[in-house]
Amino acid sequence: VPDPGSADELLAGASAGDRGALARLLTLVERGDDAGRELSRATFGLAGGAWTVGITGAPGAGKSTLTNRVIAALRARDQRVGVLAVDPSSPFSGGALLGDRVRMGDHALDEGVFIRSMASRGHLGGLASTTPEAARLLDAAGFDWVLVETVGVGQVEVEVAGATDTTVVVLNPGWGDAVQAAKAGLLEVADVFVINKADRPGAQEAQADLEAMLDLSSSHLATDGWRPPIVPVVALTGEGIPALVECLLAHRDALDADQGRPLAARRADRLEAEVEALLVARLRRRVLDAAGPVWAATLDQVRAGRLDPWSATDAVLATLDPALADRAPATGGGDPESS
Amino acid sequence: VPDPGSADELLAGASAGDRGALARLLTLVERGDDAGRELSRATFGLAGGAWTVGITGAPGAGKSTLTNRVIAALRARDQRVGVLAVDPSSPFSGGALLGDRVRMGDHALDEGVFIRSMASRGHLGGLASTTPEAARLLDAAGFDWVLVETVGVGQVEVEVAGATDTTVVVLNPGWGDAVQAAKAGLLEVADVFVINKADRPGAQEAQADLEAMLDLSSSHLATDGWRPPIVPVVALTGEGIPALVECLLAHRDALDADQGRPLAARRADRLEAEVEALLVARLRRRVLDAAGPVWAATLDQVRAGRLDPWSATDAVLATLDPALADRAPATGGGDPESS
Repeated sequence: VPDPGSADELLAGASAGDRGALARLLTLVERGDDAGRELSRATFGLAGGAWTVGITGAPGAGKSTLTNRVIAALRARDQRVGVLAVDPSSPFSGGALLGDRVRMGDHALDEGVFIRSMASRGHLGGLASTTPEAARLLDAAGFDWVLVETVGVGQVEVEVAGATDTTVVVLNPGWGDAVQAAKAGLLEVADVFVINKADRPGAQEAQADLEAMLDLSSSHLATDGWRPPIVPVVALTGEGIPALVECLLAHRDALDADQGRPLAARRADRLEAEVEALLVARLRRRVLDAAGPVWAATLDQVRAGRLDPWSATDAVLATLDPALADRAPATGGGDPESS
Repeated sequence: VPDPGSADELLAGASAGDRGALARLLTLVERGDDAGRELSRATFGLAGGAWTVGITGAPGAGKSTLTNRVIAALRARDQRVGVLAVDPSSPFSGGALLGDRVRMGDHALDEGVFIRSMASRGHLGGLASTTPEAARLLDAAGFDWVLVETVGVGQVEVEVAGATDTTVVVLNPGWGDAVQAAKAGLLEVADVFVINKADRPGAQEAQADLEAMLDLSSSHLATDGWRPPIVPVVALTGEGIPALVECLLAHRDALDADQGRPLAARRADRLEAEVEALLVARLRRRVLDAAGPVWAATLDQVRAGRLDPWSATDAVLATLDPALADRAPATGGGDPESS
C-alpha cells in the first residue's frame, strides 16, 4: 500500500516550486493507481484558482507557436503558466518520441512556466479523465493559467480541448479550414476563434465565412450570450496576441458574471463528464478482473469464431450482479446513453 | 420489441444488391440497440470472406484521392468494394455536414461500390466497436473488399485503422511527416506505407528516412517476418496505384500462409479488442441505469464541489455487486489493464 503522505509531501514540494516533485505527481496522475487517487482527493479541494485554456486546431495550424506566444504574454503579466501538450504533433510533445517527455522550448529557464506532454495511450481513464486531473494538479501547485494544447482531430482529443474554461480553436486562411473544423466538431467547443497566419491571402474571407457560420448556428449563443470572437493573429511574429489575451480575459469576465454562475455551471458539467469517464475506466478494470476465468473462456470462443461480440458480452455480463446482468437492454428509439 | 426477422430480411435484401436495405442495416449497427444486436449475430457467421483495408494518415495526406484510385483498381479486377469513411475531413464524409451522409463521388452509379460515412460521435460503443461491426455487415452483404478510411490522428481513430487485415499508412514527402506519424502511433499499425505526392521534392528522402526507421524498429518484423513495403504514389494521376494493389495482395498472401494461421491470429486479436470495447460500452449503460438515483445524487455532490472524481466513482461502485465494488484497486506497478 503506497503511503498517502508521499503524495502530500510531493504536493507541498510542488507548491513550493520543486519541479521534480511536480513531474513525479503528474506521473502518479497518469498511472491512476492508489497514489494517484489519494492525490486526486488532495488536489481537488486546492484547485479552482487557475484559468484553464484549451488550444486546439488541425495539425499544422500553428497551435504550438501560438501557445508559446500566449505563454510569453501571460508571463509579461506576471502570471505563472502550466502547459499540458496532448497533441502528438506538438514540438512540446517531441520528447515522447525522443525519450525525453518534457520540453521547455523558449521557456526552459523560466521558473514560472511548466510544460508537460501527456501520453495519449496507456492510462487508466484515457485522456478524458487524466487531462483534467493533471490540470487540477497544476492549479493546486499554484499556476495561474493552465494551457491545454490538443490536436483538433479525433473524438477524444476534441472533447479534451472542450473541457476547459476557455477553448481557443485555431484555424488558418484558405484550405476550407473552417469546413474541416466544423466536421471535426470544433465549432461547437470554440469560445474564441483564432485565424492564425492571418498575413496570408484569404484571411478576410475565412473570417467572413466563419462569421456567417456563427450567424447560422444558434448553439454558440446559448452560453450566456457569449458569441465567440474571431481574432486574426500571426503567431510567428506575435501580431494579434495582445488582442487574443484580451479575448481570453473578456471570456473569463463573462463567465464570472452573475456571481460566477456561468463558470460554476460550466465547471460542474465538465466534472460530470470526467467522473463518468473515470467510472467507465474503473468498471472496465474491475469487471475484467472479476470475470477473469469467464472472460478468458469467452474470448477463446470469440477467437475461434464460435461467438459473436454481442453474445460474448452477454456471457460476461451474466456473471455479474443480477441487477446489472439481467437488465433488459434498451429497446428501440436509439441509445439513451449516447451523446 | 423489434422483429428480428426484419434485420434478416434487410440482410437478404442487401445481399441481393438492395442499397437502401444496406443503408438501413448500417443505421441499425450505428444505433447499437436490439435490432443491431440480432443483426450482429446474423452477420457474424456470414462474414470472413472480405479483405479489410485501413487507409489512414494525417489530414491533407491525400487519403480520399488514394481511396478513390484503389476503388477503381479493384473494380477493374471485378471486385465489389465497400468503403467506410471515418475521417471527418474526407469528402466521402462531407454529407455529415451537409445533411446527406452518403456520397458516392466518382462511383455514384457503380453498383459494385458502396460508400458510407461513419459518424464519430454518438454510438453505444464508439468507433472502436461500431466500425468492425459495419465492416462485417458489408462483408456479409457480399463485398469482396472493405476499405476503412480514418484520419490518422486521435487515439480511437488510429486504433480503428489498425483493426483491419491490411493497414495502409499514407505519408507525404517533406514536412517531417514520418516523425509526426511516429508520434501519432501510425508506424506501429502500418502494414504498407504509401508516400503520396511522390512527384514532389523530398520523396526519396522520405522513403530513406522511413526505411531507416523500420531498420531501427524491430516491432514491424514481429508479424510473421512481414516488413512493410514503402510505395511511392501520385494519387492524383494514379501513378503507383498498381504497385500498391500488388502490395495489398502480397500482404494478403503473407497472412494466408501457413494455412491462414497469421490471418486467423490477427483477426482473433481484433475481435478480442472489439469485444472489450463493446463490453465497456454496455457496462457503462447498465451501471448508469442501475445506479440511477445514487448516480444522480453523487453527481450533485460533484457539481457542488463536495466530492472529487475518485471518491464519486467509489460511491457508485459501492452500489454494485460486492464482488466488483469491494475489490481493492490495483496497487503499484502501473495499470495492468492499460494498453
